[in-house]
Amino acid sequence: MSKRIGKQTLYLPSAPAVEGFAAVVGKKEGEGPLAKRFDFISEDSYFGQASWEKAESHMLRQCFELACDKAKVPPSELDYILAGDLLNQCVSSAFAMRQSAVPYLGLYGACSTMAEGLSLGALLVDGGFAEQICALTGSHFCTAERQYRFPLEYGGQRTPSSQWTVTGAGAVVLGRRGRIRVTHVTHGKIVDAGIKDPNNMGSAMAPAAFDTLRAHFRDTGRSPEDYGAIFTGDLGALGHDILQALFKADGVELGPRTMDCGVLIYDLATQEVNAGGSGCGCSASVLGGHILQAMEDGVWERVLFAATGALMSPTSAQQGESIPGICHALALEREG
Amino acid sequence: MSKRIGKQTLYLPSAPAVEGFAAVVGKKEGEGPLAKRFDFISEDSYFGQASWEKAESHMLRQCFELACDKAKVPPSELDYILAGDLLNQCVSSAFAMRQSAVPYLGLYGACSTMAEGLSLGALLVDGGFAEQICALTGSHFCTAERQYRFPLEYGGQRTPSSQWTVTGAGAVVLGRRGRIRVTHVTHGKIVDAGIKDPNNMGSAMAPAAFDTLRAHFRDTGRSPEDYGAIFTGDLGALGHDILQALFKADGVELGPRTMDCGVLIYDLATQEVNAGGSGCGCSASVLGGHILQAMEDGVWERVLFAATGALMSPTSAQQGESIPGICHALALEREG
Repeated sequence: MSKRIGKQTLYLPSAPAVEGFAAVVGKKEGEGPLAKRFDFISEDSYFGQASWEKAESHMLRQCFELACDKAKVPPSELDYILAGDLLNQCVSSAFAMRQSAVPYLGLYGACSTMAEGLSLGALLVDGGFAEQICALTGSHFCTAERQYRFPLEYGGQRTPSSQWTVTGAGAVVLGRRGRIRVTHVTHGKIVDAGIKDPNNMGSAMAPAAFDTLRAHFRDTGRSPEDYGAIFTGDLGALGHDILQALFKADGVELGPRTMDCGVLIYDLATQEVNAGGSGCGCSASVLGGHILQAMEDGVWERVLFAATGALMSPTSAQQGESIPGICHALALEREG
Repeated sequence: MSKRIGKQTLYLPSAPAVEGFAAVVGKKEGEGPLAKRFDFISEDSYFGQASWEKAESHMLRQCFELACDKAKVPPSELDYILAGDLLNQCVSSAFAMRQSAVPYLGLYGACSTMAEGLSLGALLVDGGFAEQICALTGSHFCTAERQYRFPLEYGGQRTPSSQWTVTGAGAVVLGRRGRIRVTHVTHGKIVDAGIKDPNNMGSAMAPAAFDTLRAHFRDTGRSPEDYGAIFTGDLGALGHDILQALFKADGVELGPRTMDCGVLIYDLATQEVNAGGSGCGCSASVLGGHILQAMEDGVWERVLFAATGALMSPTSAQQGESIPGICHALALEREG
């Protein structure tokens, strides 16, 4: 049986279920509007470790263990771990999981990694390749700043379109038992709109979000109104407005049901994050903290989660390249 | 139906088929023992581009197009591209594929990426999620040197255990029609043996190869003799010897049927590569050039392909971390 509907969307007959989820964040995220949703807020940017890179790894491991605990699965009994991050060679995930003794699939989807890992994990379960998997990712403001931008000590200025890398991690255990189900997956194409400003990631990623969401609606025959809520990954305020405008030009009103994880995680008026949050940990911690809990609480029955990523590096930017974007989407549905 | 056999291996009932494959390499690889196997050898390390990073992207794109041509599939009709590389944020793959208009799954498996992408692609086909996919990866000596080690102009000394990053790419199109089939997949766990010398990757990765191959033999009930040939990824001469010794201590003789792509791709006696080749492009170009062609030619009926990766970065090495390894394996079988 083909599970493809339309050109780009998969329907998952067995609807893999969310068995556990968790989110761990840093101090600034713990001062934002979603503070009460997170499982753990670290007051210490080092998470008790000797470097920020080790802190990022520690945070991922902590989040992974919390999600496994909540799913009541011993970590070593998982069939797969799917993980990745923003650090060069994705070391924070690899080091976080090196003692796990579970088959490991390393991913690089930039800030779309949570949607990539969770959707691939859903396919592994639906296809009969796995009984239980964990998808996780995260990011850390301090590791991202020094890798992508400037040493923190430099105190660089930020443009209004810039975003603030979330210190946070999210982890989700998928299996066969649970009320929240993954019913559809739409994997995205790379979309390059020619944006070259690394301080304007939202504009670079919005066309990718548009492309994937439009494909999802086309393939499924659904419209935005069929979802209680639609969450984009980390477009930020500017990218969010561009996405709304792109759909509007296409005759579709996304409306207030469409929200962006990068806008939700901070108070944009007071927390000095300019256009909002970004980083793998942005959509991951909002999913593992806020979205899945709200679905369990009955706030929304059907949610579309569409994380976005910018597939660039400092080297590609220095060599004058534009910033290709990508967006992977998955439909989540709570059973009665 | 569960497709899991044993703890860590998947059996693929539909046995996805190799529909096309290609390999593109640089000048040095084109002077090695496998020269006649490659589809294209570039005399120019820049591949006609303005930077080595752009050259790496160009090489990947060229290899992808060759594999699609040989599979007689228009690139845009693929259901998925699975790709990754060694560059920070995997930019060479993303930029190579940004015009492809095909759903894109970015991977980070270091030098195991070919096995990771091909095996995941096989699951997508077997699970009914895709009809045709392309898995590809590559590496470039000059981009790797300046990112991981020293500017080329510096002329750094190399230790005898060091390996030479292959300038090369490999691409494989999988679908439903073809004589060479993917029958089993064994995804590896991260194995960290505590090796800390980034000039001794073979020693760091050999324990991971041992772990995955042993799991494969245990789960399938097969022994090395059940394969015409077993190819490890890029252990190099030193790592290859360690792998043989680990199995010997376990009472298993791998014997001469077990070869390493990093040893095969260069003439170790004359090409000054110390312990042999490495990089994502090493096992990828040996698979896409040599192994699959030899299988088509009837040299081996059944092959085990086990690419290895070292999940480290310059930052992790600088922070005193050891080098975790990983190895993913897949069984290939030619039909009568």
